[in-house]
Amino acid sequence: MAKVGIVMGSDSDMPIMKKAADVLEQLGVEFEMTIISAHREPDVFFEYAKTAEEKGFKVIIAGAGMAAHLPGMCAAIFPMPVIGIPMHTTSLGGRDSLYSIVQMPSGIPVATVAINGGVNAGLLAAKILATSDPELLARLKAYAEDLKNQVEKKDARLKEVGYKNY
Amino acid sequence: MAKVGIVMGSDSDMPIMKKAADVLEQLGVEFEMTIISAHREPDVFFEYAKTAEEKGFKVIIAGAGMAAHLPGMCAAIFPMPVIGIPMHTTSLGGRDSLYSIVQMPSGIPVATVAINGGVNAGLLAAKILATSDPELLARLKAYAEDLKNQVEKKDARLKEVGYKNY
Amino acid sequence: MAKVGIVMGSDSDMPIMKKAADVLEQLGVEFEMTIISAHREPDVFFEYAKTAEEKGFKVIIAGAGMAAHLPGMCAAIFPMPVIGIPMHTTSLGGRDSLYSIVQMPSGIPVATVAINGGVNAGLLAAKILATSDPELLARLKAYAEDLKNQVEKKDARLKEVGYKNY
Amino acid sequence: MAKVGIVMGSDSDMPIMKKAADVLEQLGVEFEMTIISAHREPDVFFEYAKTAEEKGFKVIIAGAGMAAHLPGMCAAIFPMPVIGIPMHTTSLGGRDSLYSIVQMPSGIPVATVAINGGVNAGLLAAKILATSDPELLARLKAYAEDLKNQVEKKDARLKEVGYKNY
Amino acid sequence: MAKVGIVMGSDSDMPIMKKAADVLEQLGVEFEMTIISAHREPDVFFEYAKTAEEKGFKVIIAGAGMAAHLPGMCAAIFPMPVIGIPMHTTSLGGRDSLYSIVQMPSGIPVATVAINGGVNAGLLAAKILATSDPELLARLKAYAEDLKNQVEKKDARLKEVGYKNY
Amino acid sequence: MAKVGIVMGSDSDMPIMKKAADVLEQLGVEFEMTIISAHREPDVFFEYAKTAEEKGFKVIIAGAGMAAHLPGMCAAIFPMPVIGIPMHTTSLGGRDSLYSIVQMPSGIPVATVAINGGVNAGLLAAKILATSDPELLARLKAYAEDLKNQVEKKDARLKEVGYKNY
Amino acid sequence: MAKVGIVMGSDSDMPIMKKAADVLEQLGVEFEMTIISAHREPDVFFEYAKTAEEKGFKVIIAGAGMAAHLPGMCAAIFPMPVIGIPMHTTSLGGRDSLYSIVQMPSGIPVATVAINGGVNAGLLAAKILATSDPELLARLKAYAEDLKNQVEKKDARLKEVGYKNY
Amino acid sequence: MAKVGIVMGSDSDMPIMKKAADVLEQLGVEFEMTIISAHREPDVFFEYAKTAEEKGFKVIIAGAGMAAHLPGMCAAIFPMPVIGIPMHTTSLGGRDSLYSIVQMPSGIPVATVAINGGVNAGLLAAKILATSDPELLARLKAYAEDLKNQVEKKDARLKEVGYKNY
Repeated sequence: MAKVGIVMGSDSDMPIMKKAADVLEQLGVEFEMTIISAHREPDVFFEYAKTAEEKGFKVIIAGAGMAAHLPGMCAAIFPMPVIGIPMHTTSLGGRDSLYSIVQMPSGIPVATVAINGGVNAGLLAAKILATSDPELLARLKAYAEDLKNQVEKKDARLKEVGYKNY
Repeated sequence: MAKVGIVMGSDSDMPIMKKAADVLEQLGVEFEMTIISAHREPDVFFEYAKTAEEKGFKVIIAGAGMAAHLPGMCAAIFPMPVIGIPMHTTSLGGRDSLYSIVQMPSGIPVATVAINGGVNAGLLAAKILATSDPELLARLKAYAEDLKNQVEKKDARLKEVGYKNY
Repeated sequence: MAKVGIVMGSDSDMPIMKKAADVLEQLGVEFEMTIISAHREPDVFFEYAKTAEEKGFKVIIAGAGMAAHLPGMCAAIFPMPVIGIPMHTTSLGGRDSLYSIVQMPSGIPVATVAINGGVNAGLLAAKILATSDPELLARLKAYAEDLKNQVEKKDARLKEVGYKNY
Repeated sequence: MAKVGIVMGSDSDMPIMKKAADVLEQLGVEFEMTIISAHREPDVFFEYAKTAEEKGFKVIIAGAGMAAHLPGMCAAIFPMPVIGIPMHTTSLGGRDSLYSIVQMPSGIPVATVAINGGVNAGLLAAKILATSDPELLARLKAYAEDLKNQVEKKDARLKEVGYKNY
Repeated sequence: MAKVGIVMGSDSDMPIMKKAADVLEQLGVEFEMTIISAHREPDVFFEYAKTAEEKGFKVIIAGAGMAAHLPGMCAAIFPMPVIGIPMHTTSLGGRDSLYSIVQMPSGIPVATVAINGGVNAGLLAAKILATSDPELLARLKAYAEDLKNQVEKKDARLKEVGYKNY
Repeated sequence: MAKVGIVMGSDSDMPIMKKAADVLEQLGVEFEMTIISAHREPDVFFEYAKTAEEKGFKVIIAGAGMAAHLPGMCAAIFPMPVIGIPMHTTSLGGRDSLYSIVQMPSGIPVATVAINGGVNAGLLAAKILATSDPELLARLKAYAEDLKNQVEKKDARLKEVGYKNY
Repeated sequence: MAKVGIVMGSDSDMPIMKKAADVLEQLGVEFEMTIISAHREPDVFFEYAKTAEEKGFKVIIAGAGMAAHLPGMCAAIFPMPVIGIPMHTTSLGGRDSLYSIVQMPSGIPVATVAINGGVNAGLLAAKILATSDPELLARLKAYAEDLKNQVEKKDARLKEVGYKNY
Repeated sequence: MAKVGIVMGSDSDMPIMKKAADVLEQLGVEFEMTIISAHREPDVFFEYAKTAEEKGFKVIIAGAGMAAHLPGMCAAIFPMPVIGIPMHTTSLGGRDSLYSIVQMPSGIPVATVAINGGVNAGLLAAKILATSDPELLARLKAYAEDLKNQVEKKDARLKEVGYKNY
């Protein structure tokens, strides 16, 4: 049963949302991905958010750009954590998306990650589930160890070839 | 029957929303004012937005601050014009409210006025109704004439007393 | 008789203004499109704005970039709604256009849409006219239904092919 | 045993951090509050972050202002969720704190809430724990119901006294 | 005969505009101060701008705030230099005024000074006139010498009393 | 004898500065163009600024990017008008250049034009000289007439071919 | 002999510059404080910057606000490190000062500290001198130890009295 | 023995960090370049920063982007100067990096250079070392002389070929 709902307002957000899905898959976390526009189909959206708990979702990852209402409206209805991904935008660089997602009023938090932060949204969802899942926590630690090793390899290569040949 | 719905997410927005109401009253336009939070009572909000047309509303004026979703969510449901008033905010000066209201995705416009622009929201609602109401249009022209006279009086006083005594 | 005037300060704004025109055409609303610079031909502009009402315009859509004065100056003269489209700009991303259009002083509202929001400007004009035109309102509802269907099709395809093949 | 660590870099952040603590207390979640500067006592900080898991923390709430490194450095060491609260700042309004907290590189998420969002940080921590604690989830739902009732009371009072006497 | 027209859109701008007037008076330059709103009385404004040359104006100083159109519209009509003063604004700190004044399209320059830069607007007007008035140029040089002396006195006092007693 | 000095801190600014030169040439105003860095050769710069008046300059046009000190330092030394052109920059879009040029302290104005506003800098210099040169003023009026005609032609073409074929 | 020159463009910067002086005094570093305006007395400024090396200065701390040219112009002339302090400003919060100081072109670095960062400017000057002064380095380490102890005391008090009584 | 440590959080920063290295090499200053992520390998990072002094480093140059913690965390541990290079970022243009580096709290300065300011970081490190190394100071003066000559050559070519052929 999927524990994470991944939802986006437009399929133009897919390249970023895919990254969240890939991380969850890599960490062995089941998820369900959906395209729903809070603006264009408010009824469908309401139904989605209202039934999310009974579907077994523990976390929702919502991505949106510009006047990004999807994460905040999910958080208004779904009682567990909602993670918001602000999409980069051409004119305002994603500031509009970021402010629309992070500046939620008191009472309705959205756990906001970086602009275009698909990978981190996936990781954060896994970390939330890992608060009650020691095996997932172990996989997250291994993931972090991998990240560390990658940096160490780069440094080793730099030391070997010198910066001019890097 | 009220033709304009005035809605705000929090009663802290009242000092600005009152200005919209005062202008409408002055111009003889009936309105109904409501406090509804799209975030804290999404069901109540949905009901409000869905029944707005049958209540006779032709325009909704929605004010909100920070991650200001109320105007955009009204526009997602109500089929006629929604006017958004971005509230001034302490940390970001209202840029967060402005971007959350004005940067709506294609298909769902919100007619945005200036930060804290309560008076202009009221006037814009009246102008919208005046497209099919010649008497209201006449009152709007008289209102504009008044504005003009006020500036002329100030200039006359400046010419009379000089800038040092103004 | 055209009910909507579409005006732009420069033909470089045409790709955005066309979108407003296309929406109006699609919704069966007559419009007249004009290129007028408030800065380069103030006399021509004044004449345009002053005669707009007698030409039958109920709404003006004005697009402009940088120090975007055209929408605000229209609103200073034309007594019914003026919709402003802030154009994207290379250096400031359209913030200059947005602030110059939305931050109007009390008394002279401009109904501002998103940066480069041509489609929404057209829709907003139609929604304004629909406050007194039930047939247009019905066409707007059908337009919204179309938008909803498009999103639903995308979600259906996602469910069918999976996110990796989307 | 405390499940939430609340940590701040300076006691000037206390008025905001207290709000997170108050919410957790109200929801029956144990927490431990600490003042640690990642900049002024990096050794103490490292020890804190490294031992957080064995102390039983499932979530850390970290508040910081300006070049706000505390949340991100916690997230670099602690394997479960870190919630960051960007503090308002005099010169940049908290944009500096917000960017320093939310714009984390891929691999190290910080769940960022609004500038000065102490209440929401506490709620988000509770929501995270509620993913595996049905009783806490029930208390969160009751909390949300309370918020809804408060808005409804305000609207009822508005309807009763009218906006001029509100 | 007044050589400089000083014009403001609202008498709330007077404290800043007075500084421009005071500098001109101090430098012996005649000026005429007027309150005209390009938005609220476009006809009066047009008349003002069109007759400015025949009244003998060589320079116009225009101050405005928010969507500040007055300087740019003066520059669209008056053929000699227009100096724009962007007014400080509560929500956006004057960025709105600044962008609306300085970001003029090609062909219509406005000589923009700092936000609230009333003194510098007056000085710039005098410097423009001084390009053909050697006596005014001499007075401007004396003014600059004064500024220099004031700084030197402050430094002398610092050297005398020490920074702790300054 | 050249009446306008055109100076830039780096030859990377040439594409913008050329536009100022072209406008001056078109209007029959003599100018002298120089590359001087206030930062890299402060002595050369000082000499340039100090001798500018005796060389006959009435106006200096200075372009610079990033921490753009050249216009302000010219204005600190040269007693007549200095026009500043803020250069577009990759990271901050020219905001850095704009603030460094326009936000001059009281006493030392720089007449600032738009980011990359080479044409307007040239026009402003000509307008300044035209305050005492009726023939140049006449040429400026003809230039403005040309601008107007260009817009009118575009509108005529639009009316002729329709917006879909424009 | 003073090793650090502290210079400010206006005595309104004194409250911030005093903090740099106090830190240097506390660390036993001699300094000389001066008020010089690069804009109002360029000759005096040039003389100051040119003779700074022969006076024995190893570092210059320069504070300035708005279009803050003083640090950059010092760096154009003085061959050793220049530390810039961007002053907070009313309208732009110090962004103008920050950009004017930090965004120096290639070849002329200014070591920029935080907006109003007087203490850090003093510390950075001491750290620079400490690269060749082991005793000063020891005093800097003791200073850092003090900072650490202050935070530890605050945390101890928090643990003792609890957050509600803090 | 290397006197300057150059450290970056990711090898994507290499093109900018190389410029710092090249300047140091050109000026005959030994350096050691390392890739370390404060976020991905905090232990490795801590070890690096703690042993930097005993390795003989007098200055550390640290480059980082987005929520750029590397320079500030170096400054929290290493007792001598740390120079921070804010990396350009796609969405926020490097503002995020700049604020995360420059806005350090009192007590922990980072000497910040321009966004992508690799050359200036190298020069600043050399200037710091030159406070106790007259030969390096002489090489820095020669470097500055070179910069001056390059500008003079460009101006000479401009004078020779004219701006149209430049």
